[in-house]
Amino acid sequence: MVEPQDGKPGCVFLVGAGPGSLDYLTQQGRFCLEQCEVLVYDALTDESLRGLLPPACELRNVGKRGGAPSTPQAEINQILVDLAQQGKQVVRLKSGDPFVFGRATAEIQALKAAGCAFEVVPGLSSALVAPLLAGIPLTDPVMGNGFGVFTAHDVDALNWEALVQLPTLVLLMGGRNLEAICQRLLRRERSPFTPIAIIRWASQPQQQVWTGTLSDITERVRSHLDSGQKLSPCIIVIGEVVSLREFLQPDS
Amino acid sequence: MVEPQDGKPGCVFLVGAGPGSLDYLTQQGRFCLEQCEVLVYDALTDESLRGLLPPACELRNVGKRGGAPSTPQAEINQILVDLAQQGKQVVRLKSGDPFVFGRATAEIQALKAAGCAFEVVPGLSSALVAPLLAGIPLTDPVMGNGFGVFTAHDVDALNWEALVQLPTLVLLMGGRNLEAICQRLLRRERSPFTPIAIIRWASQPQQQVWTGTLSDITERVRSHLDSGQKLSPCIIVIGEVVSLREFLQPDS
Repeated sequence: MVEPQDGKPGCVFLVGAGPGSLDYLTQQGRFCLEQCEVLVYDALTDESLRGLLPPACELRNVGKRGGAPSTPQAEINQILVDLAQQGKQVVRLKSGDPFVFGRATAEIQALKAAGCAFEVVPGLSSALVAPLLAGIPLTDPVMGNGFGVFTAHDVDALNWEALVQLPTLVLLMGGRNLEAICQRLLRRERSPFTPIAIIRWASQPQQQVWTGTLSDITERVRSHLDSGQKLSPCIIVIGEVVSLREFLQPDS
Repeated sequence: MVEPQDGKPGCVFLVGAGPGSLDYLTQQGRFCLEQCEVLVYDALTDESLRGLLPPACELRNVGKRGGAPSTPQAEINQILVDLAQQGKQVVRLKSGDPFVFGRATAEIQALKAAGCAFEVVPGLSSALVAPLLAGIPLTDPVMGNGFGVFTAHDVDALNWEALVQLPTLVLLMGGRNLEAICQRLLRRERSPFTPIAIIRWASQPQQQVWTGTLSDITERVRSHLDSGQKLSPCIIVIGEVVSLREFLQPDS
């Protein structure tokens, strides 16, 4: 452990913010924010979380800002190491969960190599919370004894022979590839009537959910989006469990 | 909506408690417990959560107690409906997340059929939080673009041809079947050197983690357990990401 300048040990807390709303932050995440001296965050951070910070807390935005590229990973790693070595209580806020597509590994390895203290604080992953907020259980005693969670920004990198056999699929970052995703599954004999849901802006006031089948969802979504409007970011859920939604939604 | 006796509308909140410790409860879950008039819970509930309840809150244990069987599901459904119709603010506490192996569907359908208000509140699933607390990221840019989560209490019910092709597997309720799980994967050409971790009592002070490979984990675990001691409840993680653990654990 490197000795900080004033003798007080610094620490970096890699905190999962969940889907964004303060409602879904954990007690431990809240405690970390309340004690935080420097917050290192990306553009995804919900404004409501800032209300928990002490007034003197320093804010460091390392995400994309107004067309400018995000800070390179190596630079973020160095910022975290420098702050910890200055004896700061640092929160590195991650959307969702730090260990599910959170790219926390590089930051942790840099902190370890420099002898800095750190702790990983779990958050609600959008892979699980988006289906729940859309009224879709990911498992069911009859319809699904499990599920797969995959990133679908590159459909050619996925093993579709395996994925087509899973009862339930949750795909992140697949909005731009929706048509290709459906085609890959249909080509491998997944039924065209397989239910699918697209969840956009999960947990936000503007949350939208579209449902359909593998054969009609692309057209359905297209008809709802204004020309040029992007589907991303969204969560895609595929499988019979999606059909439970209509039986599990509160009456409105 | 059925009119309650005193005109005040009842509501059942199906709340995910997370892995047990209060640290991992969400803000929304905490708020529900603080307002709760009747808590309907299973034996798994962590004692620390009870401290949030109002002093007048009624406690209804529907789980297994001292060898006695748990309350039948139909009876639990009726308890929830009765309480909602009496105008009560009810929390139905579930361990982990209500929509991941939480068996919430039957309860929700009963509430809907009776016209009762309800809300599902997400929690941290042990499928994700146990690996994190053991220092294992479930995804990695190089080692795994996704993962599967399955219940393994019945190994014959699982599609091993598909599971063997997934980069990372998280298996719940598989402690008794550890040897059979490893054999099914090895028989389908998964490398005997594939890393595997067994996480027991995740987030509790007595948390234990054993690591090994598909070929040696059964013997390793056996040598650590006292004769007759059960491995369950545990979470099993299989895949190359398990090997990241030694690079991501805080120095102690």
